Amino acid sequence: MPSIEPLFERVAIIGIGLIGSSLARALAAQRAPAGAPLVRHVALCDRSENVRARAAELGLGQSFHGDVASAVRGADLVMICVPVGAFADVGAAIAGQLSPGAIVSDVGSVKQSVIRDIGPHLPDGVHLVPGHPVAGTEHSGPDAGFATLFQGRWCILTPPPGTDGAAVAKVSALWTAIGMSVEVMEPSHHDLVLAITSHLPHLIAYTIVGTASDMEDVTNREVVKFAAGGFRDFTRIAASDPVMWRDVFLNNKQAVLEMLGRLTEDLAAMQRAIRWGEGDKLEALFTRTRAIRRSLIEAKQA
Amino acid sequence: MPSIEPLFERVAIIGIGLIGSSLARALAAQRAPAGAPLVRHVALCDRSENVRARAAELGLGQSFHGDVASAVRGADLVMICVPVGAFADVGAAIAGQLSPGAIVSDVGSVKQSVIRDIGPHLPDGVHLVPGHPVAGTEHSGPDAGFATLFQGRWCILTPPPGTDGAAVAKVSALWTAIGMSVEVMEPSHHDLVLAITSHLPHLIAYTIVGTASDMEDVTNREVVKFAAGGFRDFTRIAASDPVMWRDVFLNNKQAVLEMLGRLTEDLAAMQRAIRWGEGDKLEALFTRTRAIRRSLIEAKQA
Repeated sequence: MPSIEPLFERVAIIGIGLIGSSLARALAAQRAPAGAPLVRHVALCDRSENVRARAAELGLGQSFHGDVASAVRGADLVMICVPVGAFADVGAAIAGQLSPGAIVSDVGSVKQSVIRDIGPHLPDGVHLVPGHPVAGTEHSGPDAGFATLFQGRWCILTPPPGTDGAAVAKVSALWTAIGMSVEVMEPSHHDLVLAITSHLPHLIAYTIVGTASDMEDVTNREVVKFAAGGFRDFTRIAASDPVMWRDVFLNNKQAVLEMLGRLTEDLAAMQRAIRWGEGDKLEALFTRTRAIRRSLIEAKQA
Repeated sequence: MPSIEPLFERVAIIGIGLIGSSLARALAAQRAPAGAPLVRHVALCDRSENVRARAAELGLGQSFHGDVASAVRGADLVMICVPVGAFADVGAAIAGQLSPGAIVSDVGSVKQSVIRDIGPHLPDGVHLVPGHPVAGTEHSGPDAGFATLFQGRWCILTPPPGTDGAAVAKVSALWTAIGMSVEVMEPSHHDLVLAITSHLPHLIAYTIVGTASDMEDVTNREVVKFAAGGFRDFTRIAASDPVMWRDVFLNNKQAVLEMLGRLTEDLAAMQRAIRWGEGDKLEALFTRTRAIRRSLIEAKQA
């Protein structure tokens, strides 16, 4: 909960997409009650003039910036919310502008690459606290965000060894204040866990929607009409931001390929069970997966 | 719309699961307004005594039967709502009890196997009109059903060559009256279309949830906690009825294996693109799949 002093004086949010604008909204919602806000000044930065104009119209922050340098100047927290492929450029652009003691954090879906791409740019005395709020929808852009996106979800922080504990605690306090539970994890373990719970599901969804739309014997019109049988959930996931996801796969290559290899192996076993009519094997798997769903429901993550 | 005469005097629903009980509820809802009902008598049949008792408690029909023969006696429509693997047995059990002119229909997710398993049992003068209302949820049993399940969705009818047109029209009128659009299709084409829009998505979802729960380096607790990144939609689909889905795969073997082969091929291409860092290929696919989602939204099937 905010005390008399705000948690941060100035937060620079770089990238006003689904996550950046949701964070801005959540912080704005924290400003509403009487008393000191969680954050005194939210500086929003996006290279698109249209996006900046829309963010201003929506009242998402206190200042709006086209260049990263002016946004981060004087910030005690910089939150990078762009596709992970753009992190090296952002790192280079902010390097000379950071105040001593500032914290640089992010919301990227891959964590080892973020540390690799941002870390070398940061001067001594600036703290890198990489993070990943595991929440989202298939929609993109500043209008897609909403203040409650993070509520009841988990945020993973992956501070490199030797990171200042107070900096980690402040980033943790920010996410906690807007409804998240926080877990600290090794960056490599994060990339493995997310490869199976997020990256592989997206890759599969994109691929199957592509496979369906390439059929010669089944028209796209038929695919659309009869999507209620299960396909429509895959189309939702496969509508997620193309650039963001391209960057995820390119930057978590090893873990994604490992998971894809395992899935392919398991699919081959299913293929064989179907071909040879091994109904007991199919039923055993399908019964086991039901239990996982029940665990999700119990954990309120369904 | 029902005229003074009901569309059917007696409908026997065999199997009171998600679909059977939803159909019963939709028919009950049609009885509510003043005037002649769509169906005068709904006879519900399930081999489980608990399910029958629950269906009676819920007031889902006018009579409740443990044996198929007594349920179908005097019925002018028999609607089979059991897993497709049980159709041969149901066909044998109803064979001697059908009235001349009666229509036998079903809601099975595979159509060639239904014709193969039911057709030979039916006496001359009884009409086989196989059908598939493409609608559902991951929940099972009589309590999972709801009257609006079918609204705005498509029902596919696959009458074999030479089927009486009036019988097809009556089954079509039933589904239309409870909110569905009806399309007539070749049974083999149905099995191909559904293999890609429904069967393959379910197979993939079951498999990936199994793959995730088998990981040595990622605990099931972690999989559950961080499911919001995409995995949770797969767990929902993978919670669907195990026996129903076992039977679908065993009875639509050829089309499912064909689709799985195509998907595996496309996955291998994605795997290669990721390994070699071909971001343009990934982005091109991810952009193309977004368009399919838009088509679904426009067709109100999202």
